Amino acid sequence: MTNPKAIGIDFGGTSVKLAVVEGSELLTDVHRIPTQNFVGPDPLIAAITEAVGTLKETHPDVVGIGVGVPGAVDYSKGVTYNLTNVKGWSDVPLRDKLAETTGMPTVLDNDANCMAFAEWKFGAGQGYHNVLCVTLGTGVGGGLILNDQLYRGSTYAAGEIGQMSIDLDGVDGPYGNSGALERYIGNRQIGEMAARMYEEKGIAIPEDHSPEGLARLAREGDEVARAAWSKVAYYLGSNLMSTIYLLNPDAIVIGGGVSYAGELLFDPLKRRLKETLTQECFGHLSVVNARFGNTAGIIGCSAMAAELV
Amino acid sequence: MTNPKAIGIDFGGTSVKLAVVEGSELLTDVHRIPTQNFVGPDPLIAAITEAVGTLKETHPDVVGIGVGVPGAVDYSKGVTYNLTNVKGWSDVPLRDKLAETTGMPTVLDNDANCMAFAEWKFGAGQGYHNVLCVTLGTGVGGGLILNDQLYRGSTYAAGEIGQMSIDLDGVDGPYGNSGALERYIGNRQIGEMAARMYEEKGIAIPEDHSPEGLARLAREGDEVARAAWSKVAYYLGSNLMSTIYLLNPDAIVIGGGVSYAGELLFDPLKRRLKETLTQECFGHLSVVNARFGNTAGIIGCSAMAAELV
Repeated sequence: MTNPKAIGIDFGGTSVKLAVVEGSELLTDVHRIPTQNFVGPDPLIAAITEAVGTLKETHPDVVGIGVGVPGAVDYSKGVTYNLTNVKGWSDVPLRDKLAETTGMPTVLDNDANCMAFAEWKFGAGQGYHNVLCVTLGTGVGGGLILNDQLYRGSTYAAGEIGQMSIDLDGVDGPYGNSGALERYIGNRQIGEMAARMYEEKGIAIPEDHSPEGLARLAREGDEVARAAWSKVAYYLGSNLMSTIYLLNPDAIVIGGGVSYAGELLFDPLKRRLKETLTQECFGHLSVVNARFGNTAGIIGCSAMAAELV
Repeated sequence: MTNPKAIGIDFGGTSVKLAVVEGSELLTDVHRIPTQNFVGPDPLIAAITEAVGTLKETHPDVVGIGVGVPGAVDYSKGVTYNLTNVKGWSDVPLRDKLAETTGMPTVLDNDANCMAFAEWKFGAGQGYHNVLCVTLGTGVGGGLILNDQLYRGSTYAAGEIGQMSIDLDGVDGPYGNSGALERYIGNRQIGEMAARMYEEKGIAIPEDHSPEGLARLAREGDEVARAAWSKVAYYLGSNLMSTIYLLNPDAIVIGGGVSYAGELLFDPLKRRLKETLTQECFGHLSVVNARFGNTAGIIGCSAMAAELV
């Protein structure tokens, strides 16, 4: 069975990316619209509509449009609550506006759900029934597949792994949620933690102590950089252990900008999970790297659109 | 529409309790079989079968049997893994044995799931779509209703709230899971914590410093007892905050042996949740006391049996 073609639109902080997608395959190059060229929603929606029109010329058989946005949405109403890093996008009925301007069935969801849907439908989470997808980057996001369905929660706000606490009296979180995971393993926080670790050892802080720089250093034999990644695994594992006791999933898919870390993250993480979980929970569990990188959002939201028909 | 009648069997540490149930109404007295009179499964199963026969004489129209047990089960196979406080019950195919000896359709689940099902179907969780049920007692258990279904997880081990960590470097848990919630707010741990609090204040430890005793003392104006309950709320709230960020439920139902605590627990708990959650997660949320007490297990498993037909 072939998958219907749909247009995926991934709303990012700096650009909106569009492509025609069939299953997990992009049938066109990714078209980018820089967001900073536009003030407020309507001009940008007009530019997106134009780009959709161009894509439809070469692919007239697309069945719908899927949009993934960086922030909370009201899924049932198709309204953005607030987009992270994109100003003037509170309470925009983006789904219905785009459906009207393009004349096509449209679906809107947040980007973590799109990523989870893509990985479950076509990627590293395929074939599993209960999947937790985690994205590591500036923040820490999550999406849940439970009983073979995307689970969105009562106000479509489920999956906020980054706001879960790993330490009841820990680092301040953004909402009074002390110990928020994101404040330990967000990209910036990883860099700051590594800097402290070099200082404590009396070693000069490497110029590039970003997560990616630390991964390179660790592979070259830098013990502090390796220890920093183990610490990231310890923090992430502290959360995942709890999440697994609650949800007993069969797979954890980890993606985002840490794919370069590989075994630096996965080896200590799996060890920690094995040491802290019952055999019932751990024996059955796969912990895997996400398959899709930057295209997970486009693939996921177009897959949601393909299911509209 | 009337509910079919079914027999609920609640397997406890000291006795097995049986009754005929219609919806949430017990149509018979609760019949008790003391477990210590029996060695191993088969004699006890024979006694249960006899009791089922007696119940069927007065209620020949029962449609099935539901069994709730204190411990993990393989729901699909109907096999107990291990019953807490009942020896010799590892790997017993209890569901099929009872179905054979009684000739009736039988369902087997763990008691926390039965409690959650009862509260969602007929009790404090009725009408909500996503419900987390927590039982506080010797241990801390949980059951999940997600998207209007009981959520059991990939190996039927979901809902283990008591094993989730509130402190990555906290008190040892039973499986290497440091900071396990159960080790902070299990009945024994509440008593021990209160004793330490009295000692620190140089106040004689009250003879009855059990959770129930502390609730009574707090109502009589004992400040330490009141502070102890606030601390319980703080620990529980630290977990629930995380669980709510993950699952975005519309209701939390709290039951078990703390129902006597009432506002001593609920007031500080709700305050803490309000202070640590986003409006999207908190605004929509009900935090309520369970409706059923000791009969939740019998009602829940008989309700599962009633759905077999």
